[in-house]
Amino acid sequence: MNYSMIRYVLFRLLKVMGTLFTLPLIVALIYREFDSAVSFFILALCCFLIGTIFSSKKPSNTVIYAKEGFAITAVAWIAVSLMGAIPFVITGAIPNYIDALFETVSGFTTTGGSILTTVDNMEYSVQFWRTFTHWIGGMGVLVFLLAVVPMADGYSMHLMRAESPGPVVGKIVPKVKDTAKILYLIYIGITVLEMICLFISGLPLYDAITISFSTVGTGGFAIHDSGMMGYSVASQVIIIIFMALCGINFTVYYFLLNRKPKEAFAIDEVKYYLGTIVVASGFIAFNIYRAGVLDDWKLCFHHAMFSVVSIMTTTGFGTLNFDEWPMISKLILMVLSLIGACAGSTGGGFKFSRALIVIRNARNELNFIVHPKAVKRVYMDGHSVEGTTVKSVSAYLGIYVITFIVSTLIVALDNFDFQTTVTSVIATLNNIGPGLGMVGPMGNYSQFSYLSKFVLMFDMLAGRLELLPIFIILKPKTWKR
Amino acid sequence: MNYSMIRYVLFRLLKVMGTLFTLPLIVALIYREFDSAVSFFILALCCFLIGTIFSSKKPSNTVIYAKEGFAITAVAWIAVSLMGAIPFVITGAIPNYIDALFETVSGFTTTGGSILTTVDNMEYSVQFWRTFTHWIGGMGVLVFLLAVVPMADGYSMHLMRAESPGPVVGKIVPKVKDTAKILYLIYIGITVLEMICLFISGLPLYDAITISFSTVGTGGFAIHDSGMMGYSVASQVIIIIFMALCGINFTVYYFLLNRKPKEAFAIDEVKYYLGTIVVASGFIAFNIYRAGVLDDWKLCFHHAMFSVVSIMTTTGFGTLNFDEWPMISKLILMVLSLIGACAGSTGGGFKFSRALIVIRNARNELNFIVHPKAVKRVYMDGHSVEGTTVKSVSAYLGIYVITFIVSTLIVALDNFDFQTTVTSVIATLNNIGPGLGMVGPMGNYSQFSYLSKFVLMFDMLAGRLELLPIFIILKPKTWKR
Repeated sequence: MNYSMIRYVLFRLLKVMGTLFTLPLIVALIYREFDSAVSFFILALCCFLIGTIFSSKKPSNTVIYAKEGFAITAVAWIAVSLMGAIPFVITGAIPNYIDALFETVSGFTTTGGSILTTVDNMEYSVQFWRTFTHWIGGMGVLVFLLAVVPMADGYSMHLMRAESPGPVVGKIVPKVKDTAKILYLIYIGITVLEMICLFISGLPLYDAITISFSTVGTGGFAIHDSGMMGYSVASQVIIIIFMALCGINFTVYYFLLNRKPKEAFAIDEVKYYLGTIVVASGFIAFNIYRAGVLDDWKLCFHHAMFSVVSIMTTTGFGTLNFDEWPMISKLILMVLSLIGACAGSTGGGFKFSRALIVIRNARNELNFIVHPKAVKRVYMDGHSVEGTTVKSVSAYLGIYVITFIVSTLIVALDNFDFQTTVTSVIATLNNIGPGLGMVGPMGNYSQFSYLSKFVLMFDMLAGRLELLPIFIILKPKTWKR
Repeated sequence: MNYSMIRYVLFRLLKVMGTLFTLPLIVALIYREFDSAVSFFILALCCFLIGTIFSSKKPSNTVIYAKEGFAITAVAWIAVSLMGAIPFVITGAIPNYIDALFETVSGFTTTGGSILTTVDNMEYSVQFWRTFTHWIGGMGVLVFLLAVVPMADGYSMHLMRAESPGPVVGKIVPKVKDTAKILYLIYIGITVLEMICLFISGLPLYDAITISFSTVGTGGFAIHDSGMMGYSVASQVIIIIFMALCGINFTVYYFLLNRKPKEAFAIDEVKYYLGTIVVASGFIAFNIYRAGVLDDWKLCFHHAMFSVVSIMTTTGFGTLNFDEWPMISKLILMVLSLIGACAGSTGGGFKFSRALIVIRNARNELNFIVHPKAVKRVYMDGHSVEGTTVKSVSAYLGIYVITFIVSTLIVALDNFDFQTTVTSVIATLNNIGPGLGMVGPMGNYSQFSYLSKFVLMFDMLAGRLELLPIFIILKPKTWKR
């Protein structure tokens, strides 16, 4: 294990954090929240100075392998969360550090589940930081680092692979650094575009900015207790569109920007993703219309689509309390949340591409019995998937199920009802935010014990980093020199 | 597809069914239930005659492959269920044929979930048939057929493999016919032993016989509304022991009978199975004692162990209503029911050996990142597991999850609560019987719609036959000549 390299990356990150803290500092100054401004200023200064001093010398041995890539990623995310929770405590928004940490982990992992019972009275600068964590976590802190820090290509790929979601992580362009830059540029472009659209649709500028952070990061923190209900239908439609866009593999946008629409639309999972949105929205709209949730079928479709996109992209915004809908609609949303968004997007969950591989592998197994001489091969995007990838996806499903079961058992110690217990784990492990019951769209995570909160934090990190990194650092063997 | 062979096996089975119907006929005569006796007599005669006539000529082409093996198994089980439901209807015990079919499928698949709200007033002969279905289904109808019908070894193995539970099905002795005979002899031995023990412990002979059928088949149909609560603690202990015994891989008994204890105890999953029983019982006993369910800690342990063994072996007997226990105990039972019993036992579920392969495969995946040069191999019982087996188990997990999700969505159309919807599918797909909520230990399946009942029947069959056979017959390609 290359410890000096871990140290180096962590202090570089600290420097980045220092820079990031200046944004809420500016917001605090604009809104004349001077106490908070001082807090953010001191924090930014400390982070930047300590980070700069200790990362000034590059380690002599910059060799890192997959193991280091995973370990650095996991440690970095934990460190960033520990740091990011401080503003909540020192500004008094969330006095309890564990609760603040839960909120921050929920922010960075773009989960969006909150321990707060109300957010309406929060200071502008703290509110800004809260939604900004979604934006940072959405594309990833290390991808950002890769875009700005010079690092040998072969090694930085290990970091990229560990942080980026999906069964296979490819470089869009030959260099990792350029790939990271392109991804962040697209990301910033989409964010700014949404801010403009929301502002034009009538949202105050502050709302437009913060809601865009939450949307583009597919996070789900709202800045009002009413969630998205207070906004006009036009604004909600804009939010639907941008949630859906951010659940798509970002490679698609690169292809589109380079005028390669053929390559962009050849990606299997994107087709299934968009198809599922339409079919599920239609079904749920029909279901809630018949159940009499709303009288207007157009509004039914609007809210159904909002919920479907919000849940599938694991954003977690709500316009209606879907916990009151018929069981079939609730369960469809729950299943969609398990599948999640596309690989290479900012959304969470198991990912469409993995689900496709699992389904096609299962189909192969059945075909194999009928045609024992058939070749067992899984196809994706017109190419055959490597055997090791299929194996990794299968192992991933195994780890996923085991994590889910063990977490549920520990959370069950709180003795809440079945629905709350099960869906709180689903909602955190898939980075959705709201579940059903006590953690439903109108509920929150404040009542869980510290033990459960730690388990749910673990699940959020495990979900965002796709399990492996967070388990790698738990293995003593990883830390051998 | 070898149609003549399917026809031949089905008519042989009809003959066997005719023979089996004579047992409840005898019971009907003993208890002077003459109406039912006539019904059973006509049924037995028809089945036997039709079966004998149409299976008198062996088909010229007896070649069957894996495909035929799976298809015959699935079709045979459906046929047997359709036949087995008739006595319930003509004796008037369950006038509705769909409900009778549900009860029969539940019986043969050793699920034990009932649509009856009361069983106390049922005729002795019908009651006998009801529990006897568990006994037939426990070891398998085709295994029975293999033991008595001459068939070429290479072909009969396909049937054995399709019906026997577990990721790898081996022959105990070189010949399939002998293996089937040995399995049935051990099975009969255990059954008779339990009858004697229960009779000595004070149960009436009729109760001892029927409860033994339900126990040894790990079914769960009780003959009184009070379930197992009416029996003494001594009798309950005997039932615990025999449930636990029947959840063990039957190969163990063969080794023990041949004085090869070393081979018997080298089987990994048996160790984990027994260890899990002890640990889980201890934990739940402690949990329900502290929650004040019972004042006596010895009784707490007794009932905890009864529930753990009953659920893990997917029998489903109850001495206490565990639906009223703390959530953690309920969830532990639920998780244990998912894992189920050992491969090669009469119990259902995902099976311990599969769970071990999934866990070890997941561990390998993590090791592989830390040591990229390590060989990815899964070990069981001291030997390395073949790559194709690991792949099949992974595919199995995939099919299992997909079946679970799709079934839950359809059952959700009934709009029952979350707990009932989810656990009814778990309880049928794993052949347990009771779930939580409306289908809890004190509930039943009578309120579901016909659609849901068909889905749950499908799940019971899929669970008992371990998914593949029942999906094979749904593929149009299977039926090509």
